[in-house]
Amino acid sequence: MLKSVDINCDMGEGFGPYTIGQDDEMLDVVTTSNLACGFHAGDFKIMADICAKAKQKGVAVGAHPGYPDLWAFGRRHQEFSQDELRQLLAYQIGAAWAMARSVGHRLTHVKAHGALGHLVADNEMAAQALIETIQKVDDTLILSTMAGVTLERLAESAGVAYVTEIYADRAYLDSGRLVPRTQPGAVIHNADQAAARVMQMIEESAIITQSGKRIPVSIDTICVHGDTDGALQMAKKVRASLEQAGIAVKPYCQPE
Amino acid sequence: MLKSVDINCDMGEGFGPYTIGQDDEMLDVVTTSNLACGFHAGDFKIMADICAKAKQKGVAVGAHPGYPDLWAFGRRHQEFSQDELRQLLAYQIGAAWAMARSVGHRLTHVKAHGALGHLVADNEMAAQALIETIQKVDDTLILSTMAGVTLERLAESAGVAYVTEIYADRAYLDSGRLVPRTQPGAVIHNADQAAARVMQMIEESAIITQSGKRIPVSIDTICVHGDTDGALQMAKKVRASLEQAGIAVKPYCQPE
Amino acid sequence: MLKSVDINCDMGEGFGPYTIGQDDEMLDVVTTSNLACGFHAGDFKIMADICAKAKQKGVAVGAHPGYPDLWAFGRRHQEFSQDELRQLLAYQIGAAWAMARSVGHRLTHVKAHGALGHLVADNEMAAQALIETIQKVDDTLILSTMAGVTLERLAESAGVAYVTEIYADRAYLDSGRLVPRTQPGAVIHNADQAAARVMQMIEESAIITQSGKRIPVSIDTICVHGDTDGALQMAKKVRASLEQAGIAVKPYCQPE
Amino acid sequence: MLKSVDINCDMGEGFGPYTIGQDDEMLDVVTTSNLACGFHAGDFKIMADICAKAKQKGVAVGAHPGYPDLWAFGRRHQEFSQDELRQLLAYQIGAAWAMARSVGHRLTHVKAHGALGHLVADNEMAAQALIETIQKVDDTLILSTMAGVTLERLAESAGVAYVTEIYADRAYLDSGRLVPRTQPGAVIHNADQAAARVMQMIEESAIITQSGKRIPVSIDTICVHGDTDGALQMAKKVRASLEQAGIAVKPYCQPE
Repeated sequence: MLKSVDINCDMGEGFGPYTIGQDDEMLDVVTTSNLACGFHAGDFKIMADICAKAKQKGVAVGAHPGYPDLWAFGRRHQEFSQDELRQLLAYQIGAAWAMARSVGHRLTHVKAHGALGHLVADNEMAAQALIETIQKVDDTLILSTMAGVTLERLAESAGVAYVTEIYADRAYLDSGRLVPRTQPGAVIHNADQAAARVMQMIEESAIITQSGKRIPVSIDTICVHGDTDGALQMAKKVRASLEQAGIAVKPYCQPE
Repeated sequence: MLKSVDINCDMGEGFGPYTIGQDDEMLDVVTTSNLACGFHAGDFKIMADICAKAKQKGVAVGAHPGYPDLWAFGRRHQEFSQDELRQLLAYQIGAAWAMARSVGHRLTHVKAHGALGHLVADNEMAAQALIETIQKVDDTLILSTMAGVTLERLAESAGVAYVTEIYADRAYLDSGRLVPRTQPGAVIHNADQAAARVMQMIEESAIITQSGKRIPVSIDTICVHGDTDGALQMAKKVRASLEQAGIAVKPYCQPE
Repeated sequence: MLKSVDINCDMGEGFGPYTIGQDDEMLDVVTTSNLACGFHAGDFKIMADICAKAKQKGVAVGAHPGYPDLWAFGRRHQEFSQDELRQLLAYQIGAAWAMARSVGHRLTHVKAHGALGHLVADNEMAAQALIETIQKVDDTLILSTMAGVTLERLAESAGVAYVTEIYADRAYLDSGRLVPRTQPGAVIHNADQAAARVMQMIEESAIITQSGKRIPVSIDTICVHGDTDGALQMAKKVRASLEQAGIAVKPYCQPE
Repeated sequence: MLKSVDINCDMGEGFGPYTIGQDDEMLDVVTTSNLACGFHAGDFKIMADICAKAKQKGVAVGAHPGYPDLWAFGRRHQEFSQDELRQLLAYQIGAAWAMARSVGHRLTHVKAHGALGHLVADNEMAAQALIETIQKVDDTLILSTMAGVTLERLAESAGVAYVTEIYADRAYLDSGRLVPRTQPGAVIHNADQAAARVMQMIEESAIITQSGKRIPVSIDTICVHGDTDGALQMAKKVRASLEQAGIAVKPYCQPE
């Protein structure tokens, strides 16, 4: 059984006058935050605000780069060459790195967002672009990857530090991939159900798919979302369940 | 008399399918480049391309942050609080820092662009924002400032490393500020005239204004522009004049 | 005493995944909507959605053009020449005109947003740009102007059809201008107080300023806002007060 | 043999400080211009400038809507629903309609750009979206379509006025589609060769493919491009060849 685990959440997904999610409250529940970098969401002001609050609350901050597509929130695929992927990843990681430093915090990791996240999970060319960009830009950054995908395998080969995560509120296919948002049951809305499933996955050290299949994985961090209804409630429930089971909830990488 | 001096030029000022200036040719003439960071111009692809070429040619690369205003090329003032200035500076510096590293180069300096450049030159609040951002994000970065302005004075007090520059192709007011582009004679188009004026300013170690007034300054670097007609010719002429006078043309900060 | 009056509200001020205000509910309360046109807020999808719902509910739709500044919601001034103002107004009015037609509705009016709204209210050059653009693009469009400002006077001279409005939730200076949002008391948050003040202004046919001064104006429409707390409640209260006083609430321009 | 034919060219494809092509000179050669509408290229200022010059020179102006993708110039496919296609088409057509009117000109037609142009040519869902949008927004607008594609067939069924075009500088596949830009020989750079091929296609009233196959089509307009090397020279050569053969070069739709 795990002695400790991290809870992570995407943050700073607003833009200018717009906000999504309840970042302030979520920063009291999670131990790691993934910072939108201004391409699919976020801007310099929101990024700095999140970094400052995360530092104050001892929450780790990582870059959460996405496609340049504010209108569709980075959820549509866009065509880029491998070099262009390296470039848009480096740009966003650098921006997040500097924002954390500008408020006295430090950047700990990188996790890709949305359609770009799906691409790097399974596409070797894209996974390689992410791994090499981390190695070149700042090799102390930890790569956050879904458990059991191509990206994990390549990170292992490349010798890049990485952590694997499971999703509290997303259903899994038997392939170990997420059920697409367009399909029924893709998103779990019930907090109790989500927390119970998380506990079971941790006990069995496996992803449990919609069909009930078990895929053995190691679990370093649990992803909760900030932009679904009842997200905060679900995050609190997941955390409480972990603590009741005697599992410490803390960042996989101490930000200081 | 100076033993050596740097020549710097703004670069990477295109966007997507658009290009401005003759960056490839200019990289053979100048010793330092200022990289547009995607706010007033530039994008991740253009930035990476310039960084890679600059590395290959031994040209130093710095961040050239501007207002978020692609349409007006960062030449219009925009209202931001001091915190927002810190944030938009940190974001762009970080992006440039990572782009340089992603191709094995390193970022050496920061020089603000256009209307933001004018603001930080003379406005204490904005100058302070720039100085403190450099100190927090990466205190090895050198601040590039116009000679004789508020920014220079504050950088001196703050103990930040800085260099001072004169403009080869821009006329000066008796206040030591640039003649606004909207006024006649603001931009010098004749290469011979520009080169002769640069040599005279270096000999006298002073800015020579439109009225003939001398303002004593130290000169570390000469700014040439890439986006005016005959810019490349002027840059070559300035460099040739310096070399004929026995002044070495080299970066104020070795990029490697 | 007025026999009828219109209630208008800015709508469609989201972008992509972001929403502001409660447009659906507000469309049941107001009789005229001002449609953000994609520059300070709004996008083609949101615009079409609002137009379709407005048509279904018999609510008039007008263009609500603003500065191209999504990040600051069009609330910062930006420098444009008179020609550029004409151009950015024409572009947005045309976009709104077509969106209304694309769902079988029609565009009835134009009301400028935010910092651009303040500019055209008092600056002759800008007011003229708006008036002439309406005349050239579609002279059946009605100009919506604050009561008692330069824009009203110039519209009168130019022979452009116009309506004058008062704000339900914004305090007035003795000059007849709105108290800037940065000053205390600028925005009225209490629904009862707002409704009572509206009724008094209508009874006296005058703007009532913070100091109690009366400025005689004619009142065609009452502006309520959708993006403040309790906005919907306030709009309902204003409407109920009008109806209780026997004043019909209907569009100043029938959309069909 | 044709008695008259139109020559059309895409225009206004710059943005802010950026320009592509030689629009001023091209306006002396072509009889119809397709105006970028601010999504894949163009902005309100450039649009107004082109409209004003086109009016002065008697050149017809149409909307040239594209995907919202300035960075990639509208050349990458983006996923949109049919409703979203209707909406982004209506928005851009409306903007162009108003820009033409704002300078006393009028909009005559619609031609889709780049990846969106390819989509509407062959995809029934998208073609239908374009046809219905024209019908709803302004049914006096003429649809410009490639000769021999799905869009032409559906326009015929729908009873929408349309014209068919051939490309002077693009090679054809035996399917009647353009050879993709990524393949060798896709773009014809030699002016004499392009002009001779155009004359032959007109004489035979057929598309001539790379393999020499003939596909019978009617030809209302010849598309020349403004953004390739030697584009102006090629356009002049095509026009001269037509005139030498006694074919009048004039707009298919008189703009006034």
